[in-house]
Amino acid sequence: MWDRLFVDCNIATMDARAGDPLGIVTNGAIAIEDGRILRVGKRTELAGFRAKEVVALGGAWVTPGLVDCHTHLVFGGTRAAEHAMRRAGATYEEIAKAGGGIASTVAATKKASDTELLEQSRRRLRALMAGGCTTVEIKSGYGFDTASELRLLEIARKLGEQEKVRIVSTLLALHALPKDADRETFVKEATDKLIPEAARRKLATSVDAFCETIAFTPAEVERAFTAARAHGLGVRLHAEQLSHQKGAEIAARYKALSADHLEHLDAAGAKAMARAGTVAVLLPGAFYALNEMTKPPVQLLRDAGVPIAVATDCNPGTAPLLNPQLAMNMACTLFGLTPEEAIAGMTINAARALGLAHEVGSIAAGKAADLCVWRIAELAELGYWVGMPGPERRIYGGMDS
Amino acid sequence: MWDRLFVDCNIATMDARAGDPLGIVTNGAIAIEDGRILRVGKRTELAGFRAKEVVALGGAWVTPGLVDCHTHLVFGGTRAAEHAMRRAGATYEEIAKAGGGIASTVAATKKASDTELLEQSRRRLRALMAGGCTTVEIKSGYGFDTASELRLLEIARKLGEQEKVRIVSTLLALHALPKDADRETFVKEATDKLIPEAARRKLATSVDAFCETIAFTPAEVERAFTAARAHGLGVRLHAEQLSHQKGAEIAARYKALSADHLEHLDAAGAKAMARAGTVAVLLPGAFYALNEMTKPPVQLLRDAGVPIAVATDCNPGTAPLLNPQLAMNMACTLFGLTPEEAIAGMTINAARALGLAHEVGSIAAGKAADLCVWRIAELAELGYWVGMPGPERRIYGGMDS
Ligand SMILES: [Zn+2]
Ligand SMILES: [Zn+2]
Repeated sequence: MWDRLFVDCNIATMDARAGDPLGIVTNGAIAIEDGRILRVGKRTELAGFRAKEVVALGGAWVTPGLVDCHTHLVFGGTRAAEHAMRRAGATYEEIAKAGGGIASTVAATKKASDTELLEQSRRRLRALMAGGCTTVEIKSGYGFDTASELRLLEIARKLGEQEKVRIVSTLLALHALPKDADRETFVKEATDKLIPEAARRKLATSVDAFCETIAFTPAEVERAFTAARAHGLGVRLHAEQLSHQKGAEIAARYKALSADHLEHLDAAGAKAMARAGTVAVLLPGAFYALNEMTKPPVQLLRDAGVPIAVATDCNPGTAPLLNPQLAMNMACTLFGLTPEEAIAGMTINAARALGLAHEVGSIAAGKAADLCVWRIAELAELGYWVGMPGPERRIYGGMDS
Repeated sequence: MWDRLFVDCNIATMDARAGDPLGIVTNGAIAIEDGRILRVGKRTELAGFRAKEVVALGGAWVTPGLVDCHTHLVFGGTRAAEHAMRRAGATYEEIAKAGGGIASTVAATKKASDTELLEQSRRRLRALMAGGCTTVEIKSGYGFDTASELRLLEIARKLGEQEKVRIVSTLLALHALPKDADRETFVKEATDKLIPEAARRKLATSVDAFCETIAFTPAEVERAFTAARAHGLGVRLHAEQLSHQKGAEIAARYKALSADHLEHLDAAGAKAMARAGTVAVLLPGAFYALNEMTKPPVQLLRDAGVPIAVATDCNPGTAPLLNPQLAMNMACTLFGLTPEEAIAGMTINAARALGLAHEVGSIAAGKAADLCVWRIAELAELGYWVGMPGPERRIYGGMDS
């Protein structure tokens, strides 16, 4: 006998079929056992079986639980004052070069106690969960030294233990060069100490870096990637956000799980990503909050066949975005994604970007029973409403939250 | 003895003082009796009094309940498909001229039963309430004939009776000319039948119109305004959104409560509004969803001394926006308002735009005890987060929702 059987619903399985990118099943049913999806199909196909609990969803739409594959969720303080400063015309680069920006977050993060940091981050995590996220990636990056970076990853781990959401931790080893730091010393510390230690303590599954004129060079990124691979970690990259640095090609060369932002990506980069199976993670919240004008070349990505994910980028400086549905809407409104692309972007393709497509991101037998139940008439509404409250029900491993 | 006393909080009273536009009281207290604010001040100033219930807010920020002074909340269906069409490059005018757009909402609204319409609208209203709105303006406008328009106002009235939020109803008498309708017949029906009947049945407190090349001419707007005033109703206007029509000057001439949108406002219009005391209602959600490039001239409004309000414009076609905090953030991010201006825009100035500044919009003795309790460190966060979940507590007439 099954544990639970969800019926009276329409399902976007995200198991794409020809002409049906969302793998839609109308009048569907989902059987759950031991927190996993046992079967999904037409209600009639699942007749004749019994479940301890039959849950009728009143014709709602069911999607996989949302996967937010790019956040910087663990930080101290806010940057509300800087936000006002940007309104007055200061650019991201100007703020960064003026020593403001990220340095203030690093200081506030250091100042916060572990408990304060955990509780501040939990509030943001709960907002994403209320919005439908059942898997959230969290990057470190506001530590700037080995002990502080590992502390952030410890806090991310604790959040994953205490909350029902699945947390995937990423070591953002090369985020920004601290003021007055020696580049070589900083990079060497990251490659020789931070990355090995994070791997040894299993605090992260991948290593990230920011490849940009105001951050790290391609050569420095390659050193971090080499260290990551030597220690069995995956890699991903903040690439081509503010200028074209060939970051996407470097990411592809190292078989990165994802290259993220990509506003200044070119055709060669897109092709390299497609060959490597690297997912393009689009972050419209940063584009929005920074009042950027250059959009990522979505058509290039489509033409090259690069899987497109969408994420909140939740971070204090450039995307204080707390609603995953709004990220999907922004991907449609600002970048011209179709609703179908946006939904795939926060489910199956986001799961790919985390190397978790075997486990989450679609509704298929064997996967975790992480589901969202949306009180909407059509799926396209997920790309349409601007800042919709979250799903009516959120199911983590088969159980309502 | 007071009914309730809120303590251990910081308060943005919105009672502006020189150098302090938000009227901030730190370590404040608010005394409530019979659903009204009896006293507000420093905790120490309110010592020595007793209350049946003392509520300690743990250092949270308290603001007036938010006032959303411009919505089209009551409608049937969605326009999710059209949203995808706009992604493909169609303009608002093209969609309108093609008979799509608003006509499809009018049809879906007509098709929906009263109960369906009520429940669909209630879901949106609850989203705004969850976001902190304690007062919401609702316009009709998707009826296109007298009986249908009055029906929408009846539904708005029912929502106000059934929900704790205060509803202010507006008759949007001239929204769009139905396809194949005779202009003169349509306008005459509005002025001679619809407006008098809405006034007689007290279904609205003001009359609105859309002054635009694709909608109604200044002369037609004046006829509606004349009828409104003859029947004791206030007036407001959708003005200068897509082109400069001198709508703001007409609005001012009729002492309109507000002129709304204003992307194409000029200095003469701003000056006329200032003289008339007409509030400028900015609607960044429509600017965002329509991918507009022309921003309202905020500096002109400041220079002329026009009070600025901000609203969601919640509507199916051009702003399916469901989060009032996001409207404040968009006003800052897209229009360059300061956080202080955005907060005033959804409290005291929005109350002015509804002619309700004596009753709501600030925390002052005698006003309704409609309050939001925000778990934030600084007030500027209300303009900073992108799609923040609503306040921790919402107080309607002194009582938690
Ligand atoms: Zn990032
Ligand atoms: Zn409107």
